[in-house]
Amino acid sequence: MVRKDGRTFDSLRSINIIRNYIKYAEGSCLIELGNTRVVCTATLEESVPIFLKGTGSGWITAEYGMLPRSCATRILRDKISGRTYEIQRLIGRSLRAVVDLSLMGERTIWLDCDVIQADGGTRTASITGGFVALCDAFDKLKKQNLISKIPVKDFVSAVSVGIVEGNMLLDLSFEEDSHADVDMNIVMTSKGKFVEIQGTSEKDTFTYEQMSSLIDLARKGISELIDIQRNLLKGILIL
Amino acid sequence: MVRKDGRTFDSLRSINIIRNYIKYAEGSCLIELGNTRVVCTATLEESVPIFLKGTGSGWITAEYGMLPRSCATRILRDKISGRTYEIQRLIGRSLRAVVDLSLMGERTIWLDCDVIQADGGTRTASITGGFVALCDAFDKLKKQNLISKIPVKDFVSAVSVGIVEGNMLLDLSFEEDSHADVDMNIVMTSKGKFVEIQGTSEKDTFTYEQMSSLIDLARKGISELIDIQRNLLKGILIL
Amino acid sequence: MVRKDGRTFDSLRSINIIRNYIKYAEGSCLIELGNTRVVCTATLEESVPIFLKGTGSGWITAEYGMLPRSCATRILRDKISGRTYEIQRLIGRSLRAVVDLSLMGERTIWLDCDVIQADGGTRTASITGGFVALCDAFDKLKKQNLISKIPVKDFVSAVSVGIVEGNMLLDLSFEEDSHADVDMNIVMTSKGKFVEIQGTSEKDTFTYEQMSSLIDLARKGISELIDIQRNLLKGILIL
Amino acid sequence: MVRKDGRTFDSLRSINIIRNYIKYAEGSCLIELGNTRVVCTATLEESVPIFLKGTGSGWITAEYGMLPRSCATRILRDKISGRTYEIQRLIGRSLRAVVDLSLMGERTIWLDCDVIQADGGTRTASITGGFVALCDAFDKLKKQNLISKIPVKDFVSAVSVGIVEGNMLLDLSFEEDSHADVDMNIVMTSKGKFVEIQGTSEKDTFTYEQMSSLIDLARKGISELIDIQRNLLKGILIL
Amino acid sequence: MVRKDGRTFDSLRSINIIRNYIKYAEGSCLIELGNTRVVCTATLEESVPIFLKGTGSGWITAEYGMLPRSCATRILRDKISGRTYEIQRLIGRSLRAVVDLSLMGERTIWLDCDVIQADGGTRTASITGGFVALCDAFDKLKKQNLISKIPVKDFVSAVSVGIVEGNMLLDLSFEEDSHADVDMNIVMTSKGKFVEIQGTSEKDTFTYEQMSSLIDLARKGISELIDIQRNLLKGILIL
Amino acid sequence: MVRKDGRTFDSLRSINIIRNYIKYAEGSCLIELGNTRVVCTATLEESVPIFLKGTGSGWITAEYGMLPRSCATRILRDKISGRTYEIQRLIGRSLRAVVDLSLMGERTIWLDCDVIQADGGTRTASITGGFVALCDAFDKLKKQNLISKIPVKDFVSAVSVGIVEGNMLLDLSFEEDSHADVDMNIVMTSKGKFVEIQGTSEKDTFTYEQMSSLIDLARKGISELIDIQRNLLKGILIL
Repeated sequence: MVRKDGRTFDSLRSINIIRNYIKYAEGSCLIELGNTRVVCTATLEESVPIFLKGTGSGWITAEYGMLPRSCATRILRDKISGRTYEIQRLIGRSLRAVVDLSLMGERTIWLDCDVIQADGGTRTASITGGFVALCDAFDKLKKQNLISKIPVKDFVSAVSVGIVEGNMLLDLSFEEDSHADVDMNIVMTSKGKFVEIQGTSEKDTFTYEQMSSLIDLARKGISELIDIQRNLLKGILIL
Repeated sequence: MVRKDGRTFDSLRSINIIRNYIKYAEGSCLIELGNTRVVCTATLEESVPIFLKGTGSGWITAEYGMLPRSCATRILRDKISGRTYEIQRLIGRSLRAVVDLSLMGERTIWLDCDVIQADGGTRTASITGGFVALCDAFDKLKKQNLISKIPVKDFVSAVSVGIVEGNMLLDLSFEEDSHADVDMNIVMTSKGKFVEIQGTSEKDTFTYEQMSSLIDLARKGISELIDIQRNLLKGILIL
Repeated sequence: MVRKDGRTFDSLRSINIIRNYIKYAEGSCLIELGNTRVVCTATLEESVPIFLKGTGSGWITAEYGMLPRSCATRILRDKISGRTYEIQRLIGRSLRAVVDLSLMGERTIWLDCDVIQADGGTRTASITGGFVALCDAFDKLKKQNLISKIPVKDFVSAVSVGIVEGNMLLDLSFEEDSHADVDMNIVMTSKGKFVEIQGTSEKDTFTYEQMSSLIDLARKGISELIDIQRNLLKGILIL
Repeated sequence: MVRKDGRTFDSLRSINIIRNYIKYAEGSCLIELGNTRVVCTATLEESVPIFLKGTGSGWITAEYGMLPRSCATRILRDKISGRTYEIQRLIGRSLRAVVDLSLMGERTIWLDCDVIQADGGTRTASITGGFVALCDAFDKLKKQNLISKIPVKDFVSAVSVGIVEGNMLLDLSFEEDSHADVDMNIVMTSKGKFVEIQGTSEKDTFTYEQMSSLIDLARKGISELIDIQRNLLKGILIL
Repeated sequence: MVRKDGRTFDSLRSINIIRNYIKYAEGSCLIELGNTRVVCTATLEESVPIFLKGTGSGWITAEYGMLPRSCATRILRDKISGRTYEIQRLIGRSLRAVVDLSLMGERTIWLDCDVIQADGGTRTASITGGFVALCDAFDKLKKQNLISKIPVKDFVSAVSVGIVEGNMLLDLSFEEDSHADVDMNIVMTSKGKFVEIQGTSEKDTFTYEQMSSLIDLARKGISELIDIQRNLLKGILIL
Repeated sequence: MVRKDGRTFDSLRSINIIRNYIKYAEGSCLIELGNTRVVCTATLEESVPIFLKGTGSGWITAEYGMLPRSCATRILRDKISGRTYEIQRLIGRSLRAVVDLSLMGERTIWLDCDVIQADGGTRTASITGGFVALCDAFDKLKKQNLISKIPVKDFVSAVSVGIVEGNMLLDLSFEEDSHADVDMNIVMTSKGKFVEIQGTSEKDTFTYEQMSSLIDLARKGISELIDIQRNLLKGILIL
């Protein structure tokens, strides 16, 4: 089976990550995954949510947005949908899972992931790119002697997989995603352990075996994504 | 290992479902799962969202709420959190997955799941109870000759599983959930197929083998829940 | 004249109050008045509104809500109507009137009255049930030695009366209420003194004599309601 | 007993009503009651709320607002309080009670009552002045042959009464109101019948006899207010 | 060319400013400019926005509102339009420009400009009247020895000019404004210096020469307005 | 005088406009003006606001947004400030002024200007870039034979000028702008006519002569900007 854009079933789209894309942010990047383009910025705030006050621990939280015309149809600017909340909670949990929050000090890092152009995989690109912006922000903190080491325990990347017209595919484009029977988003570390797994079947239910095969496919994609992260960040993060 | 409430690791809490709990609703129930208590109502609306107009297909959507004092701490009444959006999207997708929407006609069923008392598992109880309310609403439609048969393809139930202090547990109470390293919500049909799988690790990542064992545990719980549903609904739904 | 539900003109509907209905709340009950069902919870907050800071006095405030399908027609979840504000202000004033706020210390009690099923009289049931929840919350404070005595000066209950097709009726059901020419809500103490009186005539104006007769009818109902409260609370409140 | 402003216990403050105060409105007035100043406008809308569509009946609804510095303390502009909702519902009900809505045609009249300066009695002044604006709007409709007669069944005015330091007083100023033990707002017709009665006791409960005396006092004030209305409107309304 | 209201091209409409119109405000006036009527109040707040904390400097900010029926068509009460924001920012900047904020102490003055009736020029009338209310508020501060002198550096007034059907006109009425090809609002001091200049051409662009002529016309109007201000305030402000 | 970034007083920053930056939009560009980066998209909607229904005329409206970390300090995502409204109204008016709306048909073009990075001049860059996106959208309409010609009457660009420490400067950076005594935004056509002129003096008032000199400076900048637009659009727009 050949996909519309010429990829094999187990290929990622072309990836490009430009670090330090926004001069004001503590960490930032532009991640391009095929036609999907997301600006990720990490902002430092010298305080923590109320439930962490006095614990010595830090916090990482994410917000996700889309430019009004990042999609085929214009989105109303003031409409924060349920989907948005679902995505920003996923990004936040995924990044917190690989950080030792107790080594951050009582500070918060806000990860803003803003979609400039959307063609499928915006939430997974946000996690993959967000990790890079986060590491750069930690590096800045380290250079200012605010933390003694970058408190990251492992690399983390995310990818989508799905079953489209009977085929298991890696890294779905928007068009593929809209025809998928089953759609999974997998977040994994460099050690192959799960951070998040979200599988959904609006059109058809799925078996354990199908899930298992999809996970294998995701594992391949994530391994490639983490190689790219590792290469980009080799000056600041050795794990 | 014995749990605080005396259950074995693979036991559900006591379950009680009172059908037709609200006299105005097309379908309704009160579901009690241990101390967790949720009122589920199904409301019929004779129209569909704009993207379905003219397709002949119906729609099912869910809303989720908590009474201000359903929790240990009072919740502000007007604050719809990201968690709320995440949950109501999950409920909606789970119920749509077992309904043949094309047999509903161009109408919408609103599932309202309102938590009277929360002690863990409110989202899974909402799915399990919501299914019952939905079937009763369809039965009413059928009795009014608006549909020729109940357009439900399979039973669906949901349960949480997790790893708490190294133990794999079925159906977490709030206290267990707040100490969990890994937390999964599984939505499954009577045929053992997946509708949704959501696994999360805020504290620790998890392996494929751990995920696999948790799924086995969930399968047991869901089988028991579906037996209860099947028994309750035997007058109207034979699958 | 016999009413649709078989009551005489001066009968209350059957009443049932289940104390401690919500395990987390400082005080709570489920009050059932015919088909009307309201969950009342009292929540303690260790602070007062700004206008009471430093005065040593406490505060009692109420919020009122309805589950989306508590009525014949589904209510939108995020819509707080003017009616809601009117009702919660009435509940708050009614309860404050029988409490010696200066003996509460600088703390606030939030009374949440949430309607599970509505069949007329939800605001009066909220006051009658709210009083029970409030007393239980005060009893908890007293047992924790935060206050030396329950600072309640008198019992308080509320009831609706009205003129329907020329008949003066006690405790209107929803259907009766929607045909009423005159509708009054009376809040009274066990000593027969008024806390609130609200009489309204959308369809027809009314005379002093009519008002006077309606008040007599209300007095009878309130006396019965206070007997029930007195009996329920006899372990903690002797007045 | 002499009041701070020199009035006897049963005197109204000086009243001044300027008709046609706003050139755009179908009806309007500025009502001054002592230092209280309210602009009332009546706006015609050629449609009715959804529950009246097709019934041939009209509707009257009210909105109430305060200029930010109409009070001693500046009010935030975007904050619509519960008090506001309570007041605008009262104004709407009071005016609907004296209008034969079935003779209005399917149109709505919006009564906007905006307080320029507040010194007690803003809600009662809104009703008294709102009635004048409403009649002028009906007169305009009649002159345009949209209705055959002014569909007003009776005059209506409102006044506050209360018990302040043991004295029963008519038409409370803000200062008197803030020291009142009991506070009543009475809305009455020229025939002495009640439209609304709202009695409240935040500080002290009250007896039937006290209520009765307060109503007598209100009756006197309302009779004077209706004389003023009758005189102002004699060119257009004979009842 | 004669204008509909009989004015010559370079005449202002009749102006009337009533000082101390609102008894509670630190400073206030009602300004009438033809049919346009605006209530301006100045409210003192003993704090400053966060960006001024600790600088010793004060702040002046403005809010602008319209009564629902101040216009030909009723405005929805809760709708704050973009136009509103644009106007209140203009008023705030204009008044700050003639005040030495460093002499105010760390306090804020809120200027509320509420339009009772709108017939063109509401934003310029708000500036002209707002200046009077501001000076009266400063005078009150001075009398309370909170400031040693009124920290106003110059008089400031505002006027609109425009090109309507080829004619350059001073002080446009609403009708003239709605037919204008070019519309300018000019804010100037008594020394003839600019505080703000805003020229807009929705229908036609304009040349430098046209702009220059319009400014001359505005200068004449502003000179007359400042004479009125100077005369009104002569007891408290000599500049 | 040499500016921090090495420019002479009358130099623009380097400009770069990438057309068709967003694949979904009818027209789009990324405009870079020094460090300022704005994505402009034009979206077609086949309807017009209510006040244009049935007139045959079209409409152009603009929205303006900033990514949360486009500035030195993170901006809250849901906060639409007064400044935002002021800017989007300016952009809309400026573009409408050079379009013959009557030739567009009854359709609306939405111009979204989203700031990716802000370093002064975001509103003027939005107008300059927005014009390019608008022309590309019109070209698309023309190629689909929906309009017979591009209904643009003239080129339009915008630039800021100001007085900083006594120097008149063209195209202020953020740092220059924050030290400016006078700040003007000028919108002009290729024929040197004004579309908008907005001059503001928070720190110091300004004379006619100063305004005149600033306008000369702006004219030079706008001429250079329009040369760039003309060159970019030469394939589709000859004026």
